[in-house]
Amino acid sequence: MSTDGVVSAEPRLTRKGRATRERIVTTAAGLMFDHGVAGTSIEDVQAAAGVSSSQIYHYFRDKRALVRAVIACQTDAVLGAQQPLLDRLDSVEALRKWRDLLVGLQRERHYEGGCPLGSLAGELAETDPAARAALAAGFGTWESAIRAGIQAMRDRGELPADADPERMARALLAALQGGLLLTQVRRDTAGLEAALDTVIDHIAGVGAGTSQHVG
Amino acid sequence: MSTDGVVSAEPRLTRKGRATRERIVTTAAGLMFDHGVAGTSIEDVQAAAGVSSSQIYHYFRDKRALVRAVIACQTDAVLGAQQPLLDRLDSVEALRKWRDLLVGLQRERHYEGGCPLGSLAGELAETDPAARAALAAGFGTWESAIRAGIQAMRDRGELPADADPERMARALLAALQGGLLLTQVRRDTAGLEAALDTVIDHIAGVGAGTSQHVG
Repeated sequence: MSTDGVVSAEPRLTRKGRATRERIVTTAAGLMFDHGVAGTSIEDVQAAAGVSSSQIYHYFRDKRALVRAVIACQTDAVLGAQQPLLDRLDSVEALRKWRDLLVGLQRERHYEGGCPLGSLAGELAETDPAARAALAAGFGTWESAIRAGIQAMRDRGELPADADPERMARALLAALQGGLLLTQVRRDTAGLEAALDTVIDHIAGVGAGTSQHVG
Repeated sequence: MSTDGVVSAEPRLTRKGRATRERIVTTAAGLMFDHGVAGTSIEDVQAAAGVSSSQIYHYFRDKRALVRAVIACQTDAVLGAQQPLLDRLDSVEALRKWRDLLVGLQRERHYEGGCPLGSLAGELAETDPAARAALAAGFGTWESAIRAGIQAMRDRGELPADADPERMARALLAALQGGLLLTQVRRDTAGLEAALDTVIDHIAGVGAGTSQHVG
């Protein structure tokens, strides 16, 4: 679940420095989630976090550096919100519980906001190559966690040897991202449910085929 | 394929007026696709379309009105690019050809840009309720076209009577949207292919169940 690959190297900070930096990043993440990256200025972050301009620039060279810290922060937040399920998606039952968690989170949020990483991706992918790379790394970490569970199912013989955990994990992540986008646009979770259920049913079906072979 | 529901009422225009309006909208659509809505000013559109400020404001009261016209324009463009396949997705073979078309389009575009409607949705859903509604209508038209094909398969008995074309169409649209987002972030179509193939395989599997029942 570490996002070390995403975070750029930071200078050593005192405890107080780390707290200030974290306050700046979480404030920026919230503003960018609500108003978009383009709709959030360094001055907005300053005012909302209650820090001075020189403090922000002490920690972040420019807005792009702040955006990369926001991506790392949101990667941790998104993956953290799916714990502990995300680290053990190694049964169809676990996949369905995870699906229920994701759908439930959207309902709690009144279907607003979509995926914090997906939203950043849509806004930054074509204009900020470093941000795109950081987002790709974040999605990679997410997909790896999903794949590890499916891989464990295959290793235990609950999926056939020729099942492709990587492909299944990719399909799940895409279904999830598209489902979250449709949730945000339509203010309901029907598309999210349909997409996740279809991919999970597919995995369950591949697994059921195995049982038939074995049985 | 009409997007009448999306376009707001327009004053009657002369042929020349329609051409000018269309040039403004397609220019704005291109700029907003490349730089985002927030990154595109009315002045940018003016300069790129070679029109005066008063001309733009003759056709569009404000930027939000222009954005709604861009959504209608992109809905037509996105759906048009999938024709004639989109209007006859009434067999597994047709679904696979459509999948190949979508994957091929992304390769031609060097995996850049994602879905024009999806990108607008990510940027506007929380900040512009009228835009969100227009995007929801655009996605609705898209999903209806997909559903009509699946419905035809069911009507011909190629899917069982209890198959749910609406749910299948929703899953396909979500898989497509998430796949396009991952394509944009990762610069490859692996996620798009995995997601679409999984949902189409699911539909084919439901259909194969029917053949077994019938046969």
